[in-house]
Amino acid sequence: MEIPKQIEEALSKGLIAAIAQEADSNEVLMMAWMNQEALRKTIETRRATYFSRSRNEIWIKGETSGNVQEVLEIKFDCDGDAVLLRIKQTGSACHTGQKSCFHNEL
Amino acid sequence: MEIPKQIEEALSKGLIAAIAQEADSNEVLMMAWMNQEALRKTIETRRATYFSRSRNEIWIKGETSGNVQEVLEIKFDCDGDAVLLRIKQTGSACHTGQKSCFHNEL
Repeated sequence: MEIPKQIEEALSKGLIAAIAQEADSNEVLMMAWMNQEALRKTIETRRATYFSRSRNEIWIKGETSGNVQEVLEIKFDCDGDAVLLRIKQTGSACHTGQKSCFHNEL
Repeated sequence: MEIPKQIEEALSKGLIAAIAQEADSNEVLMMAWMNQEALRKTIETRRATYFSRSRNEIWIKGETSGNVQEVLEIKFDCDGDAVLLRIKQTGSACHTGQKSCFHNEL
């Protein structure tokens, strides 16, 4: 699959932001990063796959925990530096056991 | 207002991602970037304020277009590199006139 040129351009400058939104509820569950490989794997496998900046490697969400994300739809924004994954979440998205990583309020 | 230490730590390494979600509909309207100043201004003014990577400056969303974002709630994730703004959008979020910047599908 061809990656749109806005995204290719953004990826040439660095990582892009990937927002995982539960398709049923529209709740935003997490934000993680993607390089080109992570995006390609996500498109091909329909399993959300990200790039870890701290470990400097690709990771499949839920590979060890079982809390996988089935990707139903992928949208991207005008300047191509963010993708919105519309997903079906198994279990919780957050490693704390909370449903969403955005459970802290400022 | 004190900025939580996870966010301070993330900001010391670079920009953080700011996701604007319409509070009423839960629709994700856009993603932009923040540095510490943008986050502080957003907290203080309750007007979504971002940092432009291309222009290398702070910008108040809607300052010229009138399409401002009133920030009702700010959530942040575990590792502090993303904030979720729960907003009330005036007009459209996207410069194309579409409601959301995520109007393209991959």
